[in-house]
Amino acid sequence: MFLGRLDKRSFPGSETVLVKDAIGRITSRPVFARLSSPHFHTAAMDGFALMSDSSYGAGPENPIALHIGRDAWSINTGRPVPPNTNAVVMIENVNFIDDETFEIEKALTPWENVRRVGEDFVASEMIVPSHHKITPYEVGAILSAGIAKIEVVSKPRILFIPSGSELVSIDDAAVTDPPKGSVIEFNTVVLKGIAEQAGAIADCSPIVADDYSSIKDAIVTGVESGYNMVVLNAGSSAGSEDYSAAAIKSLGEVLVHGVAMMPGKPTILGLVDGKPVLGNPGYPVSAVLSFEIFGLPVVAEMLGIKASSRPSIMANVARKIPSKLGREEFFRVRLGKVGTKVIAAPLPRGAGSITTLTRADGIIRIPSNVEGIGRDATVPVELLRSPESIDRNLVIIGSHDLTLDILADELIPHNIFVSSSNVGSLGGLLAIKNRSCHLATSHLLDEQTGKYNWSYINQYIPDIPVKLINAVHREQGLIVPKGNPKEIKGISDLVREDVTFINRQKGAGTRVLLDYYLHRQGIDPKNIKGYSLEEYTHTSVAVAVLSGVADVGMGVMAAAKALGLDFIPVATEQYDLVIPEEFFEDEKIQRMLEVIRGDSFKKKVLALGGYGVESTGQFV
Amino acid sequence: MFLGRLDKRSFPGSETVLVKDAIGRITSRPVFARLSSPHFHTAAMDGFALMSDSSYGAGPENPIALHIGRDAWSINTGRPVPPNTNAVVMIENVNFIDDETFEIEKALTPWENVRRVGEDFVASEMIVPSHHKITPYEVGAILSAGIAKIEVVSKPRILFIPSGSELVSIDDAAVTDPPKGSVIEFNTVVLKGIAEQAGAIADCSPIVADDYSSIKDAIVTGVESGYNMVVLNAGSSAGSEDYSAAAIKSLGEVLVHGVAMMPGKPTILGLVDGKPVLGNPGYPVSAVLSFEIFGLPVVAEMLGIKASSRPSIMANVARKIPSKLGREEFFRVRLGKVGTKVIAAPLPRGAGSITTLTRADGIIRIPSNVEGIGRDATVPVELLRSPESIDRNLVIIGSHDLTLDILADELIPHNIFVSSSNVGSLGGLLAIKNRSCHLATSHLLDEQTGKYNWSYINQYIPDIPVKLINAVHREQGLIVPKGNPKEIKGISDLVREDVTFINRQKGAGTRVLLDYYLHRQGIDPKNIKGYSLEEYTHTSVAVAVLSGVADVGMGVMAAAKALGLDFIPVATEQYDLVIPEEFFEDEKIQRMLEVIRGDSFKKKVLALGGYGVESTGQFV
Repeated sequence: MFLGRLDKRSFPGSETVLVKDAIGRITSRPVFARLSSPHFHTAAMDGFALMSDSSYGAGPENPIALHIGRDAWSINTGRPVPPNTNAVVMIENVNFIDDETFEIEKALTPWENVRRVGEDFVASEMIVPSHHKITPYEVGAILSAGIAKIEVVSKPRILFIPSGSELVSIDDAAVTDPPKGSVIEFNTVVLKGIAEQAGAIADCSPIVADDYSSIKDAIVTGVESGYNMVVLNAGSSAGSEDYSAAAIKSLGEVLVHGVAMMPGKPTILGLVDGKPVLGNPGYPVSAVLSFEIFGLPVVAEMLGIKASSRPSIMANVARKIPSKLGREEFFRVRLGKVGTKVIAAPLPRGAGSITTLTRADGIIRIPSNVEGIGRDATVPVELLRSPESIDRNLVIIGSHDLTLDILADELIPHNIFVSSSNVGSLGGLLAIKNRSCHLATSHLLDEQTGKYNWSYINQYIPDIPVKLINAVHREQGLIVPKGNPKEIKGISDLVREDVTFINRQKGAGTRVLLDYYLHRQGIDPKNIKGYSLEEYTHTSVAVAVLSGVADVGMGVMAAAKALGLDFIPVATEQYDLVIPEEFFEDEKIQRMLEVIRGDSFKKKVLALGGYGVESTGQFV
Repeated sequence: MFLGRLDKRSFPGSETVLVKDAIGRITSRPVFARLSSPHFHTAAMDGFALMSDSSYGAGPENPIALHIGRDAWSINTGRPVPPNTNAVVMIENVNFIDDETFEIEKALTPWENVRRVGEDFVASEMIVPSHHKITPYEVGAILSAGIAKIEVVSKPRILFIPSGSELVSIDDAAVTDPPKGSVIEFNTVVLKGIAEQAGAIADCSPIVADDYSSIKDAIVTGVESGYNMVVLNAGSSAGSEDYSAAAIKSLGEVLVHGVAMMPGKPTILGLVDGKPVLGNPGYPVSAVLSFEIFGLPVVAEMLGIKASSRPSIMANVARKIPSKLGREEFFRVRLGKVGTKVIAAPLPRGAGSITTLTRADGIIRIPSNVEGIGRDATVPVELLRSPESIDRNLVIIGSHDLTLDILADELIPHNIFVSSSNVGSLGGLLAIKNRSCHLATSHLLDEQTGKYNWSYINQYIPDIPVKLINAVHREQGLIVPKGNPKEIKGISDLVREDVTFINRQKGAGTRVLLDYYLHRQGIDPKNIKGYSLEEYTHTSVAVAVLSGVADVGMGVMAAAKALGLDFIPVATEQYDLVIPEEFFEDEKIQRMLEVIRGDSFKKKVLALGGYGVESTGQFV
């Protein structure tokens, strides 16, 4: 609909380029051969050129002698056969009598070992059709057809305009800390990259103030400077969205304001002088999805090609995904092949988190007439990576630990990609039960025995045979601000009136550990302020402390150290890998075990601080 | 094996680049966040920031009034929440009492509508692992982590050296005709494109003479000029191959000379100063396959990534493919989904024909221990195009006509790609019988009735219901050199002693037509010199005449016209499309019928000369 409204006169024209520079460009018309290939009869072998008639009757009992320079002429592969010859006898098949004579014992057919004129293609034949993206192979064909320059569609030029008073540009020359309250502008840099990969030329304008006249001026400049499309990336607030819509309306026409999709709802589609002007939402994920869905088809239309669609595969969702009726929703997911199924684990839905795109293997679209999808339902997933790389994903679900990052990095040279979800130790065991992971991470303390994991495994997944392997030992303790301003000494301080705690979620091993110590010290959780506030990772707990959301939380030493916080040790615990036997011989698992047993992994883990690797890689 | 022998000191190092220019580059180390994202508590909605405590107890019956500037502060999305606030009430949910006061009817939980520090990621967390190809999305994540520059692996630099006395470089500025006997150099341009798509920087040296010392000097220059790899693309003759091997040996070491693969056999793998020096075969298809198989893994190794492998699918071969034991053979194939099967039709195997690569959808590898594969056997095919585009291939098998090129070009805007094989009219009917095409092209004259095609259809594929639709009428006749030097007037001249004929293959409609006229005129084919010499297309017949291989052949007027030859009309015939009913409603077929019934197609066909379109698109 929107595409149909574009004025073709605003499209880029065509241009002539050197063939050798044409890879990836789109032909604007078919390319016809100017010369045939080969353009002369060519020897296909090293040997002697001759007339086939002169060989007739030759046989082992009846060799025929040929005189060099009269009956036959020496020739190398690729050279033109002399006039009045029509075959080449291979050098291996001649018996020299003397310097001037040789014998052959087999007759040649006409044109044997000769590549005839036009064998590959003939002058005037179509070599490459129109509206076709040129490959390196085709560059070879076009050059061999005697063509040095061809006509291609000019690349559409797009101007991306970032607007927003809170935005700052990252300085190219030096890294500087953005002042508090300012946001580093990166949306237009991402969109420029996406547009260029699709065949456009893109520029990012300087940041424009978040007001009506500045936005309007920026659009006018873009439209008048010869850009074929202008994309406003205004802040996502209602105010700036209104400025964008009003500015487009005053200069041309707003065709669409607001679309029934999430993320991406505040998208604006407009026309100024027949040129597309898009108002893109400000949240990074919304900005990307909106441009991919509405901007890229415009680029393809201008290039005269079909917008490339992502390949898709069927996958089973790892958990229920709720979605609202009346709007199309886009969920970023991680994928992994577990047993015979491809499992899709949804990433957080927040449109502000660019890492939900960088970590995603694919995107699930839930149509506007569907109200969510149930756990284990089979749905199509648009792939952001190759199907082959998804086969190489090692799906780890369970307890969070900072050493998983190191493991992930160490596995990359082995072409294995760790996909980890932090749902706590019990959540990991549940994932094994649901067959939605290759292994779980767990550090569940049995209060009775003081041992880790086995009693929980026997209780929660009694029917699934697993191997238990130690990953690391690690120091758990209280994370407090630098200098420990509230002078917290231990668990007993958590009940103090002036102390706010930040907890881990139910089922997390760290929470089990805390509860064990509270129980031992006879402390009622009800007396701890913030006991009901939950975070999902050690790092999030540390951030809550760093940012003043809480005064203290429980987590591993490495998390405190990474953020420059203080740490009060409470206990050393055992962090294990729970591996179903059915996957134990999988090459990815075996490679992973090699890595954690290796020196490089252990050295990097020890450098984090608060870890022990004495039994790393050993069966528990 | 070869990779293991490379000296790592000869690999490219790493370099620092601006993040905004880093798309597609490979990280040399993990990227850790310098700042958290968001790096302050941020309003996620437009509204008022407040302490959640101040809203406790609010309800529809018990609204709570808040004073702007004392209890609540106006805030836009993306802005930092003021100190001592921990929630944002949406502007839609406040009821203004006056300019300074509003009421709310619902309590807020702590951190409601606030994006907390580190919600996306936390300073020190790994954003991108090492040895990873950076995507546009990741550029966004890295910039938002406050990082303007990162370290990436330097691109490997490759020098391609074309050598061969027969080679000429196509002039960049103007198209000139290469002198007879000279070959336009394009192999290194193709290889440069392939190398650059794999992440290298490539240069092509000037053409080097085909002698030992020139080749040796060129290698020395390459190795000493800081290239990480040197690739010789010498002529494929035994002589130049020997020069390459000897030159590499004198400077370093030849590890492999000759590999058990076809095409690509004469490949040379060597080392000079620990740097890889490849001797690549001269035939274009051999040059490409050899570099892809031996050169690209070196590029990947130098970048520290895994060489990307092509996706593959299973397909059924349309005909028997013979192959020799003891060497791996590579067959280029066209693919098409016909019914439920994917059909692979082998292209000509000649390594000199670059169009066997440009036209190929995929490559079948036959291992060295397998002696060919039988018709309809299921084999894996490495894809050169996306699986989606293969679903869009329209497979046409049968009689050749020049209008098929026009049809192919006209279908591209509809995202339909014609895959045509020229096997003659009867071959087309056989392909329908074997269910290896979507439609066949045919112009088989029934000598008894003077009508076309139906009697053959009833005889050869009686069990398969088809629709017959006329494509064009066309003039068939004798193709002779310009000026008609032998003064050929008609069919009866073909028996002349001084006339050599070039025929079409058995089963071709044109041959049936010729035989019909020979029969009518009482001519015995045995008396025609060249009757047993066969070509597969009208164009090949015209080329045979143009190049002096024959004095006369039979074919369509357009083929003569395209090559500037003279034409003696013999008959007007009917060229039809045979479409199995099971595919008739297929969208690709329906779209194809729309195209041939349209004005644009007909106009282009008429411009070829010798065609009639009066009944084009009508049922026969």
